[in-house]
Amino acid sequence: MLLDVVLSPTALDPDEVKGHRVVVVDVLRASTTIATALANGARAIIPATDTGEAGRLAATLDSNASLLGGERDGKPVEGFGAGNSPAEYGPEAVDGKTVVLTTTNGTRALSRAKKGAQVAVGTFVNAQAVADFLREGLDEDQPGTIVCAGWHGRVSLEDALCAGLLLDRVLRPEQAGALADPAKIAYALYQGSRNDIERAIRGTEHARRLHALGLGDDIARCAAVDTLDVLPVQNDGRITAA
Amino acid sequence: MLLDVVLSPTALDPDEVKGHRVVVVDVLRASTTIATALANGARAIIPATDTGEAGRLAATLDSNASLLGGERDGKPVEGFGAGNSPAEYGPEAVDGKTVVLTTTNGTRALSRAKKGAQVAVGTFVNAQAVADFLREGLDEDQPGTIVCAGWHGRVSLEDALCAGLLLDRVLRPEQAGALADPAKIAYALYQGSRNDIERAIRGTEHARRLHALGLGDDIARCAAVDTLDVLPVQNDGRITAA
Repeated sequence: MLLDVVLSPTALDPDEVKGHRVVVVDVLRASTTIATALANGARAIIPATDTGEAGRLAATLDSNASLLGGERDGKPVEGFGAGNSPAEYGPEAVDGKTVVLTTTNGTRALSRAKKGAQVAVGTFVNAQAVADFLREGLDEDQPGTIVCAGWHGRVSLEDALCAGLLLDRVLRPEQAGALADPAKIAYALYQGSRNDIERAIRGTEHARRLHALGLGDDIARCAAVDTLDVLPVQNDGRITAA
Repeated sequence: MLLDVVLSPTALDPDEVKGHRVVVVDVLRASTTIATALANGARAIIPATDTGEAGRLAATLDSNASLLGGERDGKPVEGFGAGNSPAEYGPEAVDGKTVVLTTTNGTRALSRAKKGAQVAVGTFVNAQAVADFLREGLDEDQPGTIVCAGWHGRVSLEDALCAGLLLDRVLRPEQAGALADPAKIAYALYQGSRNDIERAIRGTEHARRLHALGLGDDIARCAAVDTLDVLPVQNDGRITAA
């Protein structure tokens, strides 16, 4: 099977994705924030693995033309201009700017996936753009791997669900039988929840954490399917709209 | 929630299960082989993490009263008296004997889970015995953790499915909403396949590997639910029937 799913990046050997089209999925919220910022005119997103690196990267940029954003365990970081809520990345905040972003799981997953031939960022809001990207690879017999960011090495339901939706859009139903187990799990999970994605996401651990932090409004925003036609792609440590 | 699922032992911090009732699940085939051997009169199973350790342990035992068994990547090991097929662990082979067993994933998962207050071995064939063991803990507010063995750090569908069946037997439906994501995934997976467990297992990667090795007969044996009323429990590195 040409399409694989990694349910948590700790299960990923970085060399495994060489030559693949890779989609990194962190529904709540890095992928959604990145897609939103680019759709709203950000020039580029520079993912940083920790807050120190993010600060150093931001210091090299013109402060009028950049924004330093991110979170740790869902919470804002002191001294940062924005958190990790897509609501903070509207045109007024990001148009024409470079965003340096560090998040608990999403930017780490991007780092582990960077050896892919092409690396895109996907989630529900830009699902069709990402499905088209994977389909284009498959049409040329190029393998695709969907890497779920998860949570501190554990599997996140919302990321697996999004991987399942992408598989559903790219595969013919008769191809699902040949999938490897993690992809099969994602696919089955999506089939069971496809009629109410937002409800399934509201029941996840991560959604419950966001709710407790007063960030419950982000959930509906991150669970909306196909609201943005943008394909964020990562090259040399910068993510731009393709 | 008092009941958790770890979908792959690489995601498990061994200290996490201190004080818990733990069930280690390796449907294909270590759990099924262990349950079968004990049901057929084996005195004890000694799990060994590698073939060298298994050989050394077996050398300390009376050869008439012991059996050295196991596999690597599903294949028999040279010099071993048995592989990892439950069919090889009938009464004629194991009655009254101590079995030293090493398998690719199952015995490693047992090793990672050993700090649990009680550690049992579970699978479909002894599902009710294991569900009763977990339920007994919950009735006393003792947390339970189901550790899926997986395959080289990846999630195996058949183990997740078995974890889902155990949850289904132990939880009231209204409790499922409060589960953590990995447990929710296992539970949802089981709900989607509960009417044909064997068919779901036949579609897994592991079943396809066994089939290719000529071991396809083991699949139905491992997919049978509640055929053995045995609870294998691990104490001080020995597994015996409770």
